[in-house]
Amino acid sequence: MSQYWSPAVRELTPYVPGEQPREKLVKLNTNENPYPPAPGVGKALRDYATDHLRLYPDPTSKALREALAETFKVASSQVFVGNGSDEVLAFAFQAFFCHQAPLDLPAITYSFYPVYANLYGVELRKHPLNKQWEVDIDALAAATNRSGVIFANPNAPTGHAHSLATIEALLKRVTDRVVLVDEAYVDFGAESAVTLIDRYPNLLVTGTFSKSRSLAGLRLGYAVGSEELIDGLLRVKDSFNSYPVDSLASLVGIAALKDVEHFEACREHVITTRERTHQRLEALGFEVLPSKANFVLAQHPDYAGAQLFMDLRERGILVRHFNTSDLNNFLRITIGTDDEMDSLIEALETILD
Amino acid sequence: MSQYWSPAVRELTPYVPGEQPREKLVKLNTNENPYPPAPGVGKALRDYATDHLRLYPDPTSKALREALAETFKVASSQVFVGNGSDEVLAFAFQAFFCHQAPLDLPAITYSFYPVYANLYGVELRKHPLNKQWEVDIDALAAATNRSGVIFANPNAPTGHAHSLATIEALLKRVTDRVVLVDEAYVDFGAESAVTLIDRYPNLLVTGTFSKSRSLAGLRLGYAVGSEELIDGLLRVKDSFNSYPVDSLASLVGIAALKDVEHFEACREHVITTRERTHQRLEALGFEVLPSKANFVLAQHPDYAGAQLFMDLRERGILVRHFNTSDLNNFLRITIGTDDEMDSLIEALETILD
Repeated sequence: MSQYWSPAVRELTPYVPGEQPREKLVKLNTNENPYPPAPGVGKALRDYATDHLRLYPDPTSKALREALAETFKVASSQVFVGNGSDEVLAFAFQAFFCHQAPLDLPAITYSFYPVYANLYGVELRKHPLNKQWEVDIDALAAATNRSGVIFANPNAPTGHAHSLATIEALLKRVTDRVVLVDEAYVDFGAESAVTLIDRYPNLLVTGTFSKSRSLAGLRLGYAVGSEELIDGLLRVKDSFNSYPVDSLASLVGIAALKDVEHFEACREHVITTRERTHQRLEALGFEVLPSKANFVLAQHPDYAGAQLFMDLRERGILVRHFNTSDLNNFLRITIGTDDEMDSLIEALETILD
Repeated sequence: MSQYWSPAVRELTPYVPGEQPREKLVKLNTNENPYPPAPGVGKALRDYATDHLRLYPDPTSKALREALAETFKVASSQVFVGNGSDEVLAFAFQAFFCHQAPLDLPAITYSFYPVYANLYGVELRKHPLNKQWEVDIDALAAATNRSGVIFANPNAPTGHAHSLATIEALLKRVTDRVVLVDEAYVDFGAESAVTLIDRYPNLLVTGTFSKSRSLAGLRLGYAVGSEELIDGLLRVKDSFNSYPVDSLASLVGIAALKDVEHFEACREHVITTRERTHQRLEALGFEVLPSKANFVLAQHPDYAGAQLFMDLRERGILVRHFNTSDLNNFLRITIGTDDEMDSLIEALETILD
C-alpha cells in the first residue's frame, strides 16, 4: 500500500485474466477463436496508408458504428463502441448502475462484474444458479429496489444460454433500471436480444470482436441499445477518453464485419467441434454442462479440477481452472481446432488411465 | 436526461475534442504532427501475421514498456502504458487524486483535467497563470491540504515550459501527494522531468505517442514514475480493462520508438517552423506567447479571436478557438508543414488587410 494512492484504490481487487503463456502450449484457456480473422483484415493492414496515423481518429467512430448497425439492423445511433467489451462494460457500470441500490446478478457469471462493482462502489446482490447451473431469471426479476440487472447470455463460465422468450419475460418485469445482457459468446449458438432493443428502452446488449470475429488482440467491443442508453455511455466515454477506438481498430473491425461467409464458417466449425468434444468428454466420464459458447465447463467425479489442470499443463495443454469454492472441481475448456481437441482428449485419456 | 442514468452521470460535462473535419482543410486545430510516423511503422503493419490477432494481447504490455524504459533510461517497472495519455490521466485521477481534498492546478491548462475531476468527484483549486501566462509554480507549491498537483509542461494551450530546476523546486515542497507533470508536448523543446523520478517517489510524468511520434490515430500514452505509483495505476487499470493496449498498438509503438533519427528530424523541423511562424505572426501584429510545444497561442490587438477563427475557416484553414472568457481572443495554431504555415500567413495577410 502506498500513501499516495486514493483510499478507494487501496481496497480494489483487480481482475486476473487467463494466462498468456510465453512457451508453446495448446492454448485452451482464454476462449480465443482457433481460426484466423477474415482475410480482409490482413489486406486492410497491408494497404493502410500509415501517414493517416498522424491524425486523431474520428471520436464518434461513425464508420464502425454504421457497419455494426448494418450487421444488427439497427440505427447507428443505437450503437456504442469501445476498447474491448471490458471497457464498454466498465462505462456501463458507471453510466447506469450507480444508484445506491444493489445490482442483481447471478452468483456465477463473468468474474469481471464484481471487479467493476468494487471500482465504482456498486453493491451486488448475487443470485445462485439453479440446479441445472442455469441463470435463475426468475430470481433476478423478482428482486426490487435495485440499480440494475446484469448477466451474460450465454453465461460464463457455464455456457448455458436462455431463450429470447425468457429474456423478454425478464424485460417485461424489470422496467425501471437497465438490464444488461452481455453477449460475448452469443454467436456460438444462442439467440441475440438485439432484436428487442426497440421495445425495451432499458435493454443494453454488449458484444465483442474477440471471440466470434477472432480479434481478441484488437480490443474492440460494442453495446446496442436505445439512444438514451447510448447517450449515457457517450457521456462517460467523453469524460474519460475522446477516442477509445483507434484508427486501425476501426478499419480492422469493419473488414471483419464485411466478411459474413468467413464469420459463419468459423462459428459453425467451433460449434461442430464443441458438440464432438462434449461427447468425447462424457465418454471419459466427465460431467459436461451443455454449452452455447466456444467453451465447455466440465468436471470429473473421480479427479479434482486443480489436479487435472496441472496434469494437463505438464502435457503442454493449458485450460482454465477457477480457484473458487463453487467452481473448484471444474475445468473450463476453450474449443480449439479439431487437432487441438484431439490432443486434449489424448492427454486426458493418459491422465485418467 | 434519462431515468436510467446514474445520478452522477447526469451532472457530467464531457470534454469536447477539436473538430475532425470531413472536408479537405489545412488542419491546424488538434496539434497533430504534420510529418508521417517512422517508416518502420508501415513495415511493421505490412509484415504483421494477422492470425496473431485472434489471441489476446499481453496484459502487461511487457515489450512496449521495455522499449519505453530503454528510451527513458528507467526500469520497465517504472513505466505504465494505456490507450492514449487521456486514459492514463483518467486512471491517475482515480488512483491518486480521490482524497477528499482539492487538487491544485493552473486555471488555464489542458481542459480535460476538469472533466476528469467531475467524473471522479475531485474538487479543484485553480491557480491563475502569472502575468507572462506562465504556470504559477509557487502558488501550486504553497497550497496545503490537497489531493495532489497536476499541470502540463509545456502547458496547454499557452506553450510555456518551466525548467527542470523549477519543477524540482516544486517537488521539494510537495511531498505528501502525487505531482503529475503532463509532458504531452515535451519533445518540442522542453526538459523532461523523467530524470527526477528516482529521487521523487510522488512524481508521475505522463506522455503520448500522439504528438512527437506522429501517432495520434493509434491511441498510445504512458506514465513514468516510482514503482508504487505505477502499481497504483495498475490496480485501477486491472479493475477496468485487462488489455487497454492492443497488439497492433504495441507493435507500432515499438517501431516508432526504435527510429530515433526520424523522431529527431521531425521534432527539429517542427521547432524550426514554429520559430519562423512566431516571427511571421508578430510581423502581422499578433502577440504570440513563446512556445516550447507544437503550437502557438496568439492574439491580435485589433481582431477578435472568434472572428479570425471564422475568417480562416472560410479560407479552408482550421485553427482552434476556445470559447472561454480568458482565452476568447486567442487562437491556438498547430505547427504544420512550412507549406501549411505559408497558407496560414497568406490567409491572415488577406484577412487583416
